[in-house]
Amino acid sequence: MVVVDELGGTYEEGFEDVHRNLMNYFTLKACRTVLTQLYEMNPPSYRWFYNFVASNNPQDGKYFLRALGKERQELAERVMITRLHLYGKWIKKCDHAMMYQKISDENLELMRERLMETVIWPSDDTNTNTEKIG
Amino acid sequence: MVVVDELGGTYEEGFEDVHRNLMNYFTLKACRTVLTQLYEMNPPSYRWFYNFVASNNPQDGKYFLRALGKERQELAERVMITRLHLYGKWIKKCDHAMMYQKISDENLELMRERLMETVIWPSDDTNTNTEKIG
Repeated sequence: MVVVDELGGTYEEGFEDVHRNLMNYFTLKACRTVLTQLYEMNPPSYRWFYNFVASNNPQDGKYFLRALGKERQELAERVMITRLHLYGKWIKKCDHAMMYQKISDENLELMRERLMETVIWPSDDTNTNTEKIG
Repeated sequence: MVVVDELGGTYEEGFEDVHRNLMNYFTLKACRTVLTQLYEMNPPSYRWFYNFVASNNPQDGKYFLRALGKERQELAERVMITRLHLYGKWIKKCDHAMMYQKISDENLELMRERLMETVIWPSDDTNTNTEKIG
């Protein structure tokens, strides 16, 4: 399990890992976009690329693109151009305040959920969660 | 393999998936931060949380926090607060132009690498990549 290997060390200081994660994610997103385009325009290439993506992990972006370049350089270039293009589009839409709010909202939602599960409701005489004294 | 399941559909239109990925990544990063703190301050909790993280995937942030809340609500709240705090810190450091440049640089680096592998060097009679005319 990859996650476990990465648990050591102090991570508070920097955000280099966040940037690496974003680059890898945009590489994956670019692969999806190229796949969608190939599906419509070039079914044989779609099948080839689909299998390649399935057997090589695009979430390690650089490694993936290097491997792809050795087999189909034109596809590697297309994914590279697409990831840069997608990132450029995202810059314009990225709203940090909205994202901050979303994380805050999800935190509250989870706390509320947990509260509802643990709260002891006042007794009632119907079916669920009934408490009776004596 | 999770990736394969997600390959269908058109992804070009929106960036909702990027935001979800970022939230999940910050949840993972918050887990690492809390682990580092527990390692120093509270070894028994560290061991418990380390095992919990190893057997529950923190990259599905919401699901993970819900599961954690059922077992150790105080740790779930700590991870939630930490991910929001880390995101708030990142906002101030995130430089989209720099990131765009980094992606562009990596693209060029990969293309250059590939070019060096495929170029046919003029014949030489010594060892590595030496060029001699005549």
